[in-house]
Amino acid sequence: MTITTIILAAGKGTRMRSALPKIMHKIADRSLLEHVYGMSRQLTENKVKIVFGHGGDLVKESLKQLEASWIEQRQQLGTGHAVMQVADQIDGRDTVLILYGDVPLLKLETIKMLLANVGDKSLGLLTVNLTDPKGYGRIIRDSHGQVQKIVEEKDATNDEKLIKEVNTGIMAVKGDKLKSWLTQLKNDNAQGEYYLTGIIELAVAEHIRIITNHPHSEDEVMGVNNRMQLSHLERVYQREQAVRLMEQGVTFRDPARFDLRGSIESLGQDIEIDINVILEGKNNLGSNIVIGANTRIKNSIIGDNVEILDNCFIENAVIGPGSRIGPFARLRPETVLGTNVHIGNFVEIKKSDVADKSKINHLSYIGDTTVGSNVNIGAGTITCNYDGANKYRTVIEDGAFIGSDTQLIAPVTVGKNATIGAGSTITKDSPENQLTLSRAKQVSVAGWQRPVKKVS
Amino acid sequence: MTITTIILAAGKGTRMRSALPKIMHKIADRSLLEHVYGMSRQLTENKVKIVFGHGGDLVKESLKQLEASWIEQRQQLGTGHAVMQVADQIDGRDTVLILYGDVPLLKLETIKMLLANVGDKSLGLLTVNLTDPKGYGRIIRDSHGQVQKIVEEKDATNDEKLIKEVNTGIMAVKGDKLKSWLTQLKNDNAQGEYYLTGIIELAVAEHIRIITNHPHSEDEVMGVNNRMQLSHLERVYQREQAVRLMEQGVTFRDPARFDLRGSIESLGQDIEIDINVILEGKNNLGSNIVIGANTRIKNSIIGDNVEILDNCFIENAVIGPGSRIGPFARLRPETVLGTNVHIGNFVEIKKSDVADKSKINHLSYIGDTTVGSNVNIGAGTITCNYDGANKYRTVIEDGAFIGSDTQLIAPVTVGKNATIGAGSTITKDSPENQLTLSRAKQVSVAGWQRPVKKVS
Amino acid sequence: MTITTIILAAGKGTRMRSALPKIMHKIADRSLLEHVYGMSRQLTENKVKIVFGHGGDLVKESLKQLEASWIEQRQQLGTGHAVMQVADQIDGRDTVLILYGDVPLLKLETIKMLLANVGDKSLGLLTVNLTDPKGYGRIIRDSHGQVQKIVEEKDATNDEKLIKEVNTGIMAVKGDKLKSWLTQLKNDNAQGEYYLTGIIELAVAEHIRIITNHPHSEDEVMGVNNRMQLSHLERVYQREQAVRLMEQGVTFRDPARFDLRGSIESLGQDIEIDINVILEGKNNLGSNIVIGANTRIKNSIIGDNVEILDNCFIENAVIGPGSRIGPFARLRPETVLGTNVHIGNFVEIKKSDVADKSKINHLSYIGDTTVGSNVNIGAGTITCNYDGANKYRTVIEDGAFIGSDTQLIAPVTVGKNATIGAGSTITKDSPENQLTLSRAKQVSVAGWQRPVKKVS
Repeated sequence: MTITTIILAAGKGTRMRSALPKIMHKIADRSLLEHVYGMSRQLTENKVKIVFGHGGDLVKESLKQLEASWIEQRQQLGTGHAVMQVADQIDGRDTVLILYGDVPLLKLETIKMLLANVGDKSLGLLTVNLTDPKGYGRIIRDSHGQVQKIVEEKDATNDEKLIKEVNTGIMAVKGDKLKSWLTQLKNDNAQGEYYLTGIIELAVAEHIRIITNHPHSEDEVMGVNNRMQLSHLERVYQREQAVRLMEQGVTFRDPARFDLRGSIESLGQDIEIDINVILEGKNNLGSNIVIGANTRIKNSIIGDNVEILDNCFIENAVIGPGSRIGPFARLRPETVLGTNVHIGNFVEIKKSDVADKSKINHLSYIGDTTVGSNVNIGAGTITCNYDGANKYRTVIEDGAFIGSDTQLIAPVTVGKNATIGAGSTITKDSPENQLTLSRAKQVSVAGWQRPVKKVS
Repeated sequence: MTITTIILAAGKGTRMRSALPKIMHKIADRSLLEHVYGMSRQLTENKVKIVFGHGGDLVKESLKQLEASWIEQRQQLGTGHAVMQVADQIDGRDTVLILYGDVPLLKLETIKMLLANVGDKSLGLLTVNLTDPKGYGRIIRDSHGQVQKIVEEKDATNDEKLIKEVNTGIMAVKGDKLKSWLTQLKNDNAQGEYYLTGIIELAVAEHIRIITNHPHSEDEVMGVNNRMQLSHLERVYQREQAVRLMEQGVTFRDPARFDLRGSIESLGQDIEIDINVILEGKNNLGSNIVIGANTRIKNSIIGDNVEILDNCFIENAVIGPGSRIGPFARLRPETVLGTNVHIGNFVEIKKSDVADKSKINHLSYIGDTTVGSNVNIGAGTITCNYDGANKYRTVIEDGAFIGSDTQLIAPVTVGKNATIGAGSTITKDSPENQLTLSRAKQVSVAGWQRPVKKVS
Repeated sequence: MTITTIILAAGKGTRMRSALPKIMHKIADRSLLEHVYGMSRQLTENKVKIVFGHGGDLVKESLKQLEASWIEQRQQLGTGHAVMQVADQIDGRDTVLILYGDVPLLKLETIKMLLANVGDKSLGLLTVNLTDPKGYGRIIRDSHGQVQKIVEEKDATNDEKLIKEVNTGIMAVKGDKLKSWLTQLKNDNAQGEYYLTGIIELAVAEHIRIITNHPHSEDEVMGVNNRMQLSHLERVYQREQAVRLMEQGVTFRDPARFDLRGSIESLGQDIEIDINVILEGKNNLGSNIVIGANTRIKNSIIGDNVEILDNCFIENAVIGPGSRIGPFARLRPETVLGTNVHIGNFVEIKKSDVADKSKINHLSYIGDTTVGSNVNIGAGTITCNYDGANKYRTVIEDGAFIGSDTQLIAPVTVGKNATIGAGSTITKDSPENQLTLSRAKQVSVAGWQRPVKKVS
């Protein structure tokens, strides 16, 4: 079966109260449209066509990586009108799937159910039973349970208003049929719009059977029209991610306080995630990892047996097995830590390699640096990698010991097993095995008087 | 209509298990009493009278800013008795509104509905239908649906106990009527107390119609008697704040993890708030702002296009447009940042101005300082603003470059485009354009032996 | 009544997808088995016997502090078979209580109800009514309401499947009866297993009355088979802890964002806990304490009137009355703070005593140090306690003033009321009352040219 998916994405979304078109708002760092697109991309032999309108160029530009045709709907004359814009691109032999750019959480299984119902004598329509169906088009069935038509709220009789089964707008239908019905749609209503739902009656008139399916949950077909709905679906999505990870063996101290904004590329066994962790982008997580509270990890690779304590901020970093990070550590991009490395509190690392068993435990800034193995970097150490114009590298060789509060003015090399005295400003290379320091003499001033509080 | 609002606030609140009187406990940083008072203050021509008792002086002192008369109820002899204390201050022509200092979330619209029902031949009573009405006074109506009386739980027949509609105690009534009925209230019950609910029967006897209204939700009339109820209403209140902000176009990653403890004085478009943000006091937020996770902002002004990363603590600060703050930044009071300023990790700023495009990116303490524009302050820079007795200011002029780990001993000025060498202790003014530094010579000690682990 | 408690803990827990046996997974830092064991230990005259299987040695080793007999069940042939392993250790006069190592939240009161029903003519069985009983053994009662038997799902008739009351497996029975029935259990079922539930029919046949009780909530009898259930019970447990603390007078800004992983040994009045606080191990909390957001406190003693600001990490520390900590403070083990001590942002303290009224407000590392009273330690101060091989102590006497960015190279003593100049490296003792410093001369280089951006 070859599929043409049409994603309707032209709405403005006034109630979002935003400068952005609605479908560019995000759930878990991906736009609503990308969610719909990404799901449809999992169907094989599928041509995706996106009908856009409001914020057109902005939408296309920001989503240019999508493999889709973009069709502009210049005027907003209803869902039927939107689909008409694509009519001449539809292959009559295709199955056409109609999706909505602001309905982000529809599941692939639901779509597959729908597609399975499409034939020369049938089409698939997704409906849902709502406790409060008010405002939605009701599904009218005959005495045999066959769908006859969809009645909009304003046209519904009192009896029809009691019907809980409503139209989601999501449907799948043969291309040739759709093209034919589109030409027959009328806009003789108060709004002067062409409604796609009109094709149901046309289909019934041609004795095409309407086969309905329900989604697994209402949230699958819930659209985003305001930020309350956006945040609701964000949490639904996050809950699903947490459940999926728990099924794979992750322990959450509180799954309601977890955010996955991206993907986990690989996942080890017995990972424990404390409260308020945010995983962003693409992460790889080994086994026996503990991630502390209030920690954000982005695009990183975390080895086995790593312990990350609370309040860390880690981005584009590699953390080797057995390492221990934080609390209050910041690993910036291009940080690569070896095995059993310790990074402690109030430490920032950037564009640096730190080899096995080295320790940077307190209040330090290490940037553009290559740190060997078994190095101990004292508290308050700062690599002066920037002279105001250019950045230079620092090299600290294996076994070096950097005394506290040292500045290493790059480019500079500290030799193997060298020791730097505390409080030194190191401007030249420090030889292996030797003690290097820069230090003024300590003097005391007898009879010195402390300043006294001025009276103003 | 002139209104006299009587707020009953004399209760002790034993179940709070607190040294504070109940009505001084807080929701969103405001006491329960202030919530009730603040709502009543939105009524025009309203004289507010607060009946206090337990913790009297403490209550009055802590809330002395309230424009209200304070009436002491020395003995706690029931709600009727409490209102009697105010009787001689009631103008018979006023509409009297009875509120409760421990029922903090009542809405103005509900009160207005109630007031609209008050006349010479009617009074307004707020009732609510409870799934579990146990313990509450039931509303007894006649066959025409007219309220006849309120029956307390202990006096209720089995049939009456089935009634779900209960009294909230909140009512509005003409002053002269109330004054008359107060004199007729009896305390011939087991507790020997005067119950305000008694006036309903007195009113009915005089053919005054009891017009009832319901609040929008039960939470509006929920009282606080213990800390579970306090935390429940705190979360109800916070949910309402989040919804209000979402309606205005704010995106929350998780509205359940947001706390607004104060007001937002101005709100731009397309603000995105990550998890666990706390906004305290009075804040002004521009457009296109991103506020990172676990950040607290108090009494601050945040310009357009500001990005605040995770784990910041910002208080009484001004952040200019386009600035980028954090993660792990602390802005203390009287920090004023210009446009496109960068404040990075483990940086504390206090009582300082930082002009446009300046950067303080790593592990620094800048206090009592004026920083010009295009200044780069290196990692580990510390302004020594305090000599143990007095505080002095540091001035860093435009374009200066402060090398890492520098101490600036105030009062001191770093001239325009001056450069300070890393690791310097700057005690005197540094001239414009020049390099200034204080540095001991770097020496290496050949043949030096590292300390060895002592065996104890 | 002498009790023998048999805890069945042999299951593997395949659906946990873990290298650990199921009963070693944790809720609030205690294993499931420890929860069950800990509850049973509150019964007096109780011999606890744990039937283990999967992960046997690992389980025993990790829980060796438990006062229990360990009985191995080599083959997993059903709950009846598990109890059979203990049969020869059961004193016939004892009341035998059957518990499950993966049902962690059962309450003592529920157990006591159950035990009260055990006699020569009766046994106690815990049952629960489930909205969705599918999969559970149904309780079959006769027309007098007497329990007749338990029917497993697969053996149940359609009518029996409608029964909502199900077996929890938790029961209490006289030892001699149990021993007799165990010998009569059959494994003539598809699985070839011995089910403990079989004893109910045997008891009924002997005219032993089955007296049933319900737990207070379903969660009490909920077992852990996967990580969703584990996290569900973690949150149930945490909610209970928060409620218990609220009843004792603690205010939570959000009780759903609180974790108690251990015990509170003493609890003062009017404690306020902000969002996302984690209390671990054994803590003692005084009165009028405020604990800021995102703070973790482990095994510590917090005095009266202490204020802890956001994002602190406190472990094995003592904080004296009136002290103020954070934000972003890290107190590591063996930190002991006196009265009215101030520890500020980006400060790490370890193995140090800090006496009354001393201040360490900014970006410092103080380790292995004794700080006197009224000491002021400037920003960026670092105690160099480690020479790469040994650790030494620093002593800072009363009234000393340590200038910013000072390194104190231990062992070293700063005398009473001594002043250390900013930026000093202090290698020798500093005399009382004097100013001590080490400082290079400040020089400026006229005509100096700034580096320019290299073109690569």
